[in-house]
Amino acid sequence: MPRKCRKCGQPAVINMRQHKLALCKNHFPAWIVEQTERFIKKYKMFTYDDRILVAVSGGKDSLALWDVLIQLGYQADGLYLGLGIDEGIGYSAESRAMVEDFAAKHPQARLHIIDIVQTYGQGIPEVARRTRRGKGKPCSVCGLVKRHEMNRVARELGYNVLATGHNLDDEVAVLFQNTLNWQVEYLARQHPVLPETPGFARKVKPFFRFYERETATYALVRGIDYIYEECPFSVGATTIYYKELLNQMEADKPGAKLHFYLSFLRAREKEGLFTQRQEEKLDLHPCPKCGQPTTAPGLCAFCRLWE
Amino acid sequence: MPRKCRKCGQPAVINMRQHKLALCKNHFPAWIVEQTERFIKKYKMFTYDDRILVAVSGGKDSLALWDVLIQLGYQADGLYLGLGIDEGIGYSAESRAMVEDFAAKHPQARLHIIDIVQTYGQGIPEVARRTRRGKGKPCSVCGLVKRHEMNRVARELGYNVLATGHNLDDEVAVLFQNTLNWQVEYLARQHPVLPETPGFARKVKPFFRFYERETATYALVRGIDYIYEECPFSVGATTIYYKELLNQMEADKPGAKLHFYLSFLRAREKEGLFTQRQEEKLDLHPCPKCGQPTTAPGLCAFCRLWE
Repeated sequence: MPRKCRKCGQPAVINMRQHKLALCKNHFPAWIVEQTERFIKKYKMFTYDDRILVAVSGGKDSLALWDVLIQLGYQADGLYLGLGIDEGIGYSAESRAMVEDFAAKHPQARLHIIDIVQTYGQGIPEVARRTRRGKGKPCSVCGLVKRHEMNRVARELGYNVLATGHNLDDEVAVLFQNTLNWQVEYLARQHPVLPETPGFARKVKPFFRFYERETATYALVRGIDYIYEECPFSVGATTIYYKELLNQMEADKPGAKLHFYLSFLRAREKEGLFTQRQEEKLDLHPCPKCGQPTTAPGLCAFCRLWE
Repeated sequence: MPRKCRKCGQPAVINMRQHKLALCKNHFPAWIVEQTERFIKKYKMFTYDDRILVAVSGGKDSLALWDVLIQLGYQADGLYLGLGIDEGIGYSAESRAMVEDFAAKHPQARLHIIDIVQTYGQGIPEVARRTRRGKGKPCSVCGLVKRHEMNRVARELGYNVLATGHNLDDEVAVLFQNTLNWQVEYLARQHPVLPETPGFARKVKPFFRFYERETATYALVRGIDYIYEECPFSVGATTIYYKELLNQMEADKPGAKLHFYLSFLRAREKEGLFTQRQEEKLDLHPCPKCGQPTTAPGLCAFCRLWE
């Protein structure tokens, strides 16, 4: 990369075409930290009084997010969920080792580990094989388990904010998919901040405006070891198809993804799109087994997995 | 094409993967006519009592539409607008000849011709060069002139419905572009039927569920001569970029375009998306020069072109 850092003239580690901004190995991580702080304030995600639980998978995004929040001095602890995914490559074991390694280097923050196999008796692949929801792909089961457990741990341990490392590429792929299907209920819930509601912690995505290559470069420059492999079950996922298509659009029009997502947020705020729906009260009641709010008539979807 | 017609076993002229339907040179045009009638009724576009003005450009879609409406026995006359586009290939002259040729073969319908150069003194390329609106690309000027003149002629000659030959590929490309930019006002107006309002004729797109290859095959099989060239100014248009991207998605997932458009319509109807906005009354008043409704403080945008 022949570019020079805009701030000091040293060789750049990244050139962000959509911002017309190239930065070096010192100024780029500082920029990520500043921008994250700016997004946290702009979108009113949380303050220094909040207790934040960061969902860490061992991947670049979540570890980078935890790293940034610790640097900024937030009360940000980690939560690792052992999902029992091996598939011959020891995926869960390796990702857990990455998270534990990171946590050991950051003693000012706590790491909570929940092993799903130990706690509930089976990992994601087994549950998926056994249940209707998991037919074909375990991703739906995995998403359900993660949402439930993250919220449970947050409530039980007194965290009021759940932070995930979703980046712009993740968010745009989901937005694109929901838009192509015009799934209004999903679109209504798509926002970098979902407010706290009775029984549910606030959910925030402080990295939602960073491209994947930016979080990857950040992790690299900061020397954060992370698991490079994608989850073995993600192969052929629809979002990966859309990610490739969106990458092509981004290559043709730098900033296309950011523009798509930000104009969606603007339409929500300025035009009141989807807000009516968001305000509709769902008929929630506590699950008789786990106590988390559910719309299901009997046990919640999570508890039904283990029946 | 090795496929056989589903209805008679003769060689098929088209295989519509999204419908899993192959048809021969006899059953395909009959299917187009039936489907058009079905869409006209399903979306309450018009009845046999309405007087319909079909905007004919000389291209396959609009001539095919006129052909179908005549076959179905609707009161459907044609309107050709001479836009004064030559660009060394005699584009307007050739397209006019195609329309006149078609009209001569269908004496039961009338053809109205408005020559913009004769009527207003300049063609689209000249007006575009002269005005701010035409800077760079004449397409915006051309769209404005066509909308204004189509509506003017409909009102002056007592047609209450304006029909255009937009096909699914056209509509989806526009929907895609408006969605990527989340242009709520444009999205609110995107529908195969825009109801009549004071000063504006109803606007309908009876071909909005046909793919471009279907209308092209229909024109071919029916022996309709049409202008093959795209408008010379359309080269590099953003919608063409999106059409290519959408073609790629369609190739990967047959029916993707139709699904995208129909789920948009469903979200509008079932979920009330954009309807609030549609109902908002615009502050319209008659243009002091031409009398057509406008939101502009003085002359309407069309009349300002000629000042």
